[in-house]
Amino acid sequence: MQEKTINAGIVGGTGYTGVELLRLLARHPQVTVTAITSRKDAGTPVTAMFPSLRGFMDGLVFSTPEEAKLTDCDVVFFATPHGVAMNMARELVAAGVKIIDLAADFRLRDTAVFKTWYKLDHACPELLEEAVYGQPETMREKMKGARILGMAGCYPTSIELGLLPLLEFEKAHPGTFDLEHIIADSKSGISGSGRKADVSLITAEMADNFHAYGLKGHRHTPEIEQQLKLFAGTENVKLTFVPHLLPTIRGIHSTIYVRLKDASMELDLQGLYEKRYAGEYFVDVMPAGSTPETRSVRGSNFLRLAVHRPGNGDLIVILAVEDNLVKGAAGQSVQAMNILFGLDEKTGLDMPALIP
Amino acid sequence: MQEKTINAGIVGGTGYTGVELLRLLARHPQVTVTAITSRKDAGTPVTAMFPSLRGFMDGLVFSTPEEAKLTDCDVVFFATPHGVAMNMARELVAAGVKIIDLAADFRLRDTAVFKTWYKLDHACPELLEEAVYGQPETMREKMKGARILGMAGCYPTSIELGLLPLLEFEKAHPGTFDLEHIIADSKSGISGSGRKADVSLITAEMADNFHAYGLKGHRHTPEIEQQLKLFAGTENVKLTFVPHLLPTIRGIHSTIYVRLKDASMELDLQGLYEKRYAGEYFVDVMPAGSTPETRSVRGSNFLRLAVHRPGNGDLIVILAVEDNLVKGAAGQSVQAMNILFGLDEKTGLDMPALIP
Amino acid sequence: MQEKTINAGIVGGTGYTGVELLRLLARHPQVTVTAITSRKDAGTPVTAMFPSLRGFMDGLVFSTPEEAKLTDCDVVFFATPHGVAMNMARELVAAGVKIIDLAADFRLRDTAVFKTWYKLDHACPELLEEAVYGQPETMREKMKGARILGMAGCYPTSIELGLLPLLEFEKAHPGTFDLEHIIADSKSGISGSGRKADVSLITAEMADNFHAYGLKGHRHTPEIEQQLKLFAGTENVKLTFVPHLLPTIRGIHSTIYVRLKDASMELDLQGLYEKRYAGEYFVDVMPAGSTPETRSVRGSNFLRLAVHRPGNGDLIVILAVEDNLVKGAAGQSVQAMNILFGLDEKTGLDMPALIP
Amino acid sequence: MQEKTINAGIVGGTGYTGVELLRLLARHPQVTVTAITSRKDAGTPVTAMFPSLRGFMDGLVFSTPEEAKLTDCDVVFFATPHGVAMNMARELVAAGVKIIDLAADFRLRDTAVFKTWYKLDHACPELLEEAVYGQPETMREKMKGARILGMAGCYPTSIELGLLPLLEFEKAHPGTFDLEHIIADSKSGISGSGRKADVSLITAEMADNFHAYGLKGHRHTPEIEQQLKLFAGTENVKLTFVPHLLPTIRGIHSTIYVRLKDASMELDLQGLYEKRYAGEYFVDVMPAGSTPETRSVRGSNFLRLAVHRPGNGDLIVILAVEDNLVKGAAGQSVQAMNILFGLDEKTGLDMPALIP
Repeated sequence: MQEKTINAGIVGGTGYTGVELLRLLARHPQVTVTAITSRKDAGTPVTAMFPSLRGFMDGLVFSTPEEAKLTDCDVVFFATPHGVAMNMARELVAAGVKIIDLAADFRLRDTAVFKTWYKLDHACPELLEEAVYGQPETMREKMKGARILGMAGCYPTSIELGLLPLLEFEKAHPGTFDLEHIIADSKSGISGSGRKADVSLITAEMADNFHAYGLKGHRHTPEIEQQLKLFAGTENVKLTFVPHLLPTIRGIHSTIYVRLKDASMELDLQGLYEKRYAGEYFVDVMPAGSTPETRSVRGSNFLRLAVHRPGNGDLIVILAVEDNLVKGAAGQSVQAMNILFGLDEKTGLDMPALIP
Repeated sequence: MQEKTINAGIVGGTGYTGVELLRLLARHPQVTVTAITSRKDAGTPVTAMFPSLRGFMDGLVFSTPEEAKLTDCDVVFFATPHGVAMNMARELVAAGVKIIDLAADFRLRDTAVFKTWYKLDHACPELLEEAVYGQPETMREKMKGARILGMAGCYPTSIELGLLPLLEFEKAHPGTFDLEHIIADSKSGISGSGRKADVSLITAEMADNFHAYGLKGHRHTPEIEQQLKLFAGTENVKLTFVPHLLPTIRGIHSTIYVRLKDASMELDLQGLYEKRYAGEYFVDVMPAGSTPETRSVRGSNFLRLAVHRPGNGDLIVILAVEDNLVKGAAGQSVQAMNILFGLDEKTGLDMPALIP
Repeated sequence: MQEKTINAGIVGGTGYTGVELLRLLARHPQVTVTAITSRKDAGTPVTAMFPSLRGFMDGLVFSTPEEAKLTDCDVVFFATPHGVAMNMARELVAAGVKIIDLAADFRLRDTAVFKTWYKLDHACPELLEEAVYGQPETMREKMKGARILGMAGCYPTSIELGLLPLLEFEKAHPGTFDLEHIIADSKSGISGSGRKADVSLITAEMADNFHAYGLKGHRHTPEIEQQLKLFAGTENVKLTFVPHLLPTIRGIHSTIYVRLKDASMELDLQGLYEKRYAGEYFVDVMPAGSTPETRSVRGSNFLRLAVHRPGNGDLIVILAVEDNLVKGAAGQSVQAMNILFGLDEKTGLDMPALIP
Repeated sequence: MQEKTINAGIVGGTGYTGVELLRLLARHPQVTVTAITSRKDAGTPVTAMFPSLRGFMDGLVFSTPEEAKLTDCDVVFFATPHGVAMNMARELVAAGVKIIDLAADFRLRDTAVFKTWYKLDHACPELLEEAVYGQPETMREKMKGARILGMAGCYPTSIELGLLPLLEFEKAHPGTFDLEHIIADSKSGISGSGRKADVSLITAEMADNFHAYGLKGHRHTPEIEQQLKLFAGTENVKLTFVPHLLPTIRGIHSTIYVRLKDASMELDLQGLYEKRYAGEYFVDVMPAGSTPETRSVRGSNFLRLAVHRPGNGDLIVILAVEDNLVKGAAGQSVQAMNILFGLDEKTGLDMPALIP
């Protein structure tokens, strides 16, 4: 067997994005997980908490961040709540360690906006300056030499990649779409709410149930609008984002509505999407007329898209599905790591979804 | 015990709306189910197919429509596919039997539209003429003397009652809302797809899954638009309706988007909704800021609503939940029957939802 | 409307048995819930926590036990963890209030056994002495004049009523069954684990999952064995009880195995069960060969049974299903309350299950 | 990339074991799927039916068995109902094609027993004679040179491997266990019932539901007893097998009860199991006291076991979990194929379960 060349650390390994990183890295041919931290569970073997990893992570034990020797790693993933990565970033960057943050610390370019939504002063604005935010599909070139990656979140990835071809078209042909009334009606499986002891998440509450939340303002909205503006080349973008909690374990389905300003305009939407994503292995533009299912990406790094124009009217409806823990978090981060280390982007991620 | 005064028949009793009628009528103090038809299962006792009704419907046996003596009933419910009620209506009406159709035969006023969507000539246009379509909340007075009721379907009820206060406001203040770009992003539990042998509905396909469908045009769209126009007093109404299949047994959640033409307009939406529904027992306007859950109406005849205006912008978001089999079908039909027979509307329906 | 005559209090109203009592009592024609306690949520309206009760319990507010004036009630239900009822029992009994404990304080006759399993000295052994434990079906006569009822739990009810006819036969014909190797392989919906913030119960952990637990000893075992011995009239009874956690909201299914000592013995098992339960409205012996479903009792107070003797061998298999929150807890308690107050046992409970 | 050396055909590729074979073989470094048959869906691209395979099986199209050129394959998997493989076996064997049957045609040694349970005369008794039935863990050496493998089914694998160490101990120490009263209380996820249009399997019927079935006799019983007798070296084995349908997509949990004849006998059960399976990569004996979860093997080829002796009594309880479609069907078949072709047994199967 080929020798593995990348030593990876994971900070905050007891949540769902953490264990998903472990699942994916367990089969990555170039990566050894050498450190995993959890202050609360320090001393516990990983396989005692996650028996599904028995046989794959047998020697690995949760340790405190202090004991973890993260500076010896080649790359450190932060699968933590926001506010952790930014406080450890300087030390790690100084030690030459690549940082991949799955939380929010390196997503918003504007520290004032960050403070408004997260109630924290940014701990390392100079590193935020150089950090690259987004997905491989939108930021691949910039990611290549980066020292810090702020990965796009689960909802944002589905909406940003769902809208990208339209917004790039708008940039080239300003005035095509009404960007001030974009609606994203998103539905997320419950693993998106995290692995936490919360009555509202227990099975007897959420199985056979469905509801919206976050209508007063969701932290993902500024992050998404920031990117949509970037793609469209205009500040005149306004998103109404309504997330809902779905009684599935995994899966995000975003139904996105954008109005054409000229109802009579002819536009080859299918062609536009297919062309934009022709070279993107992990973005699958489904045949015209499709309605992608969340299960079609379960456990995989694919995002599947379909674009509709019902009744040939002025409203475009985009359907985007992804696994919130894979393309929406851990998988996308491994994809980005592959870019950072010059590997084939598919390495360790090249597997179909688990259906049924 | 009080003597029961209403003899009811059910045509098509083996589907979910049929068994739900049986569940509700089992506890209705004025109704005896005297006939239930199913050509395929004629001869089978109802309790053999639905053991949950053991002790409640012990003598009742499925019969063919011919044997069922429906003309002896006081009221006949059609829990059938479309096309059945209209072919039996003349005979029943002639015999003085009230008809409550849960299918589509008496929903669309325009027989040409009916033919376009259902591929059938209407069998009794003169009865369609006099039939009353809708919900008690919108058609109570007209229902009182009716001989035939076409009950609003599950999706339509959630959308029509969700929009009613806005549309009545529009009627009084034309030009307030952009009615040509109404969006209803609806999610329905799987019982809405019926009790049928279909691979796409089996648990291994739909549990832990979610997808949209019907983007090319759903039969409920013309029915809903017909009513929205009626409420708003204008023909200039256009609805984009995107239904999704939810991995729950029961429950519909419609997320409805309507744009205010004047973003700066102040409008007491909460007051508008509360006032409109103040006298409606089965429509519950939740406190401002609420996000109603589908389980909060599971098994009950309530529809719960919340109205939002995110960021005080120009987009209004209405959240409406109902049990598709109760307020969306059987319960609403019993409510209408109570009106037909001069009973308190709540009779037999006065019970809270089943949670957890 | 008839005036209601019974004022009921509920101690510990925020758990699943509490809210289920509220659901059932909301429609009980003789009961008004006048007090409900929750130290943690004192001041919160019941409908704010459980919107499904809007319209049914609108004035009711959680209060501290001190403020609740429980001594003014006619009956107090304890929907609490063990250890609460026994500490409030003397005061309530002295005030003439009937006590119905849904927890374990009045289940075990032997205070030493109680201490072994619950790590508490019993606070009122003299009241335990007079308390009546069990179900209406096994203890109806004794319940009639009781001041304190210890209600059988969810697992125990399914197993005790599942075995009762066999054990009474054993009592009349000693030596028929091998009572020292009874096995109850039970499966419970997740509401049986309570409404609590526990990571192991959240949807992303338990949906699409199944496992056993409690093999080292479950608190229900001594309680069940106590009753089985009583029914069989012998101390030589040994139960192996293996509970499993089912990814459903409600429902218990106990699969019970008992060996006939004489493999050639002929025994009319179906007749035995039907005869024993002929007068029991809430116990339904299904036709021979049936396999009862948990959903067939969802939300209802019925327990459905089937008895099998596979291959006409020496092993008898009993299948028992109930709704753990109704016949296994709140419903059975209301049934018992009806007995205490001389009402028809079915009052407020006479409704079929919610299917689908 | 290494050149692939094995051309595989799949007969009956539209069911769940078929698509699971496709999922696993898609990532197998040595296998190309060159033919897949489905008479009903001939002409349909595999990815049109299973979009989750887009990007993995893009050229593959369902064909009729006649067009499929199965004799050009190196190995053919039968993911069909019983009765298909035995009718095609002679031709394939003559052409030098290895046969791996996931159905029942090569499971029962005794053609009379086969006829009793499957109502068919065996079509090739001489091939049945030489066929090897079982799992790699029990039949590895015999499998190596075989031309036909009859793979053990899902329930049988969990029960056979769950009991193997005990039965081998019995063989060495006859009289230790009461083998005439073995009980297997098994619970299977709904994918075990197949991908078929059946009302009883639809989500609105089976979600939030649970029931037993097959008490009159299940086809797996003779197959299991055959193997248990073989392992124990005695004909005096009697199994009571009670299967239940679990509202999960995947996963089998067998709870197995065996009585020690001498209650006072000391036996190192944990050691016995660990020793027996020390060299078996895909059988994981969990630490003493464990209660394995079905999700811990979801999508993986592992079977996890725990062995208990509650209260140190005379009853042994074994808990066995597996993914019915992987270790219970497709995965185990690929594992066997690896043996047939001299590959490392783990090839293509070396991945952890999908949790959450």
